[in-house]
Amino acid sequence: MRRLNVALADRAYEILIGRELINRPELVMGCLSTPRVALVTNATVAPLYGERLQAGLTAAGAHVTTIVLPDGEAHKTWDSLNLIFDAMLAARCDRATTVIALGGGVVGDLAGFAAATYQRGVPFIQSPTTLLSQVDSSVGGKTGINHPRGKNMVGAFWQPRLVLADTDTLQTLPVRELSAGMAEVIKYGLIRDLPFLEWLEANMERLMAGDGELLAQAVERSCANKAAVVAADEFETAKQGGRALLNLGHTFGHAIETGMGYGEWLHGEAIAAGMVMAAELSRRLGWIAQADVERIIELLRRANLPAHGAGLGAARYLELMSHDKKVIAGSLRLVLLKRLGEAVTYAEAPAGDITAAIDACCRA
Amino acid sequence: MRRLNVALADRAYEILIGRELINRPELVMGCLSTPRVALVTNATVAPLYGERLQAGLTAAGAHVTTIVLPDGEAHKTWDSLNLIFDAMLAARCDRATTVIALGGGVVGDLAGFAAATYQRGVPFIQSPTTLLSQVDSSVGGKTGINHPRGKNMVGAFWQPRLVLADTDTLQTLPVRELSAGMAEVIKYGLIRDLPFLEWLEANMERLMAGDGELLAQAVERSCANKAAVVAADEFETAKQGGRALLNLGHTFGHAIETGMGYGEWLHGEAIAAGMVMAAELSRRLGWIAQADVERIIELLRRANLPAHGAGLGAARYLELMSHDKKVIAGSLRLVLLKRLGEAVTYAEAPAGDITAAIDACCRA
Repeated sequence: MRRLNVALADRAYEILIGRELINRPELVMGCLSTPRVALVTNATVAPLYGERLQAGLTAAGAHVTTIVLPDGEAHKTWDSLNLIFDAMLAARCDRATTVIALGGGVVGDLAGFAAATYQRGVPFIQSPTTLLSQVDSSVGGKTGINHPRGKNMVGAFWQPRLVLADTDTLQTLPVRELSAGMAEVIKYGLIRDLPFLEWLEANMERLMAGDGELLAQAVERSCANKAAVVAADEFETAKQGGRALLNLGHTFGHAIETGMGYGEWLHGEAIAAGMVMAAELSRRLGWIAQADVERIIELLRRANLPAHGAGLGAARYLELMSHDKKVIAGSLRLVLLKRLGEAVTYAEAPAGDITAAIDACCRA
Repeated sequence: MRRLNVALADRAYEILIGRELINRPELVMGCLSTPRVALVTNATVAPLYGERLQAGLTAAGAHVTTIVLPDGEAHKTWDSLNLIFDAMLAARCDRATTVIALGGGVVGDLAGFAAATYQRGVPFIQSPTTLLSQVDSSVGGKTGINHPRGKNMVGAFWQPRLVLADTDTLQTLPVRELSAGMAEVIKYGLIRDLPFLEWLEANMERLMAGDGELLAQAVERSCANKAAVVAADEFETAKQGGRALLNLGHTFGHAIETGMGYGEWLHGEAIAAGMVMAAELSRRLGWIAQADVERIIELLRRANLPAHGAGLGAARYLELMSHDKKVIAGSLRLVLLKRLGEAVTYAEAPAGDITAAIDACCRA
């Protein structure tokens, strides 16, 4: 088992990464204030891992209320959040009850936001079961739900007490979701870790084939990168760089997700296409070379990820992007690449270059 | 103008109390990150003060989006919260936009929770226009909405940057709401400030007649009491005493509010009856005398407040009270009076005494 510490001022916590962690309820029990748990999972994960975790915690002496949500990004809504509140209130969960999220990013965001707001906040533990959630959404404390007018528009920062990343769960992950998670893994290499990018280029086929040891290494290195960024800028208040750099490809990608309707494109797929757009725009600004853009596209291709966005038209992209949370005082602040392994935030990209980069990276 | 500082570690802020503060937009402008405001108010307050505040802020250079909610506790729901999110997203409010709550406790709780969760948190200013919100809900950072299964079950701690309590607004307050606010004013005397209780006994008729100078004094003394309690226990984590003491009468009172349906009893009316129940239970425990109970009832009577609860039956009270957030690990923790001017939290009250105290204080 690998241990990573996320060094937040008064809310430091550990990320545990390794095999068969779900079979070790003592790791969770040690973090509870009282032996009272609301276990939030979804219909897909419940039979695979939920029942086992519930049984283990119950045998260890916890009183567990399990809440099974419908699966999918389309359900990251107030209605699902209210299912959690309803069940917790019906079970008389009190303010010392710990909410555990067992599942992917949608379960983590919903359960985390429920933990942040149930009776004004209760303890929270993440047990991510997808590559995407293990390397991204379970680290950093962002929680929330979607709104018809935009993704993640309602939410809170709420840090877990523990993240339990059982890499065995990746063995049951559909390959399309493994790819989607790999987009965020590649992102860490692109924004701040060139040696990791090169390691990924050396190992992508074995990773995509599900090599457990390599996947655990990739998860640990990704979490270490994210934890370092989050620790330096917990609430995304840095004027330059900081947490915003984690959003490489996200402003473009969110436009794809919103424009196509949540659920058509997986988050990671949209981010992959968005990273290509950001790379293409960086090239037009003279920061990276055509060969760098092609190198990114090639690595994404080996991870079965799209290198082209949905053909919404550049005007629609720009409209959707203007709703993004990264817009500050009306100016579109994008994350771009100064070079491979170094991202910057930039608000001065000419509209013509943005439009051209989108057009160049979309299928008609 | 009176100034009170709420001394929270990294989120200290000022409460300004006085006349005609709504006519001084510069007090608000000095607290904005950018000149962008979402002004949340309700249908009753908008024509009285909302239009004036909006005009003043606009003239001072702010871009103001006004959001008018329906009036009343029955609307402290997700639907109203979503009206705020919808309007803010339609107006493209960004993360630097300041939410201002102009109205009573319902507006403050809704707008505060919207500020806590819109794009994971934006700046917030309170401008309370009722006695209840000036002395209670606008100080302390509690925000939230009701759930069909209980009051304030979903929410967040979110501190304002400024509280602007314009005591002139109390002149347009319906007398029933002045009474309801006075319940919380009396509460501060009961739980920690015997000299203030005596001052209230000396001045209740003039306060209820709307004497502006005396009301400003009562607001300031109440806020000073609340601010001291909140500063010592911001997140209500103290094991003994602390913020919980502010809930004198609230566990009983919430049962009345929930049992009768939100809106039948005003919050302050339910709290008044709840304080009598708490006093009666304290008497049965041998802590205060019958004369003390009668002294409380007499002061509440002079403020036109009920001294008896709704006749729900003790069994229903106990059931509703067991849902209260103050329940920790299944045990009913009540705020009771050791003597007038000194409250304690107590989890050991015999069920028979609780039942008898409820029965003694209910109309059949």
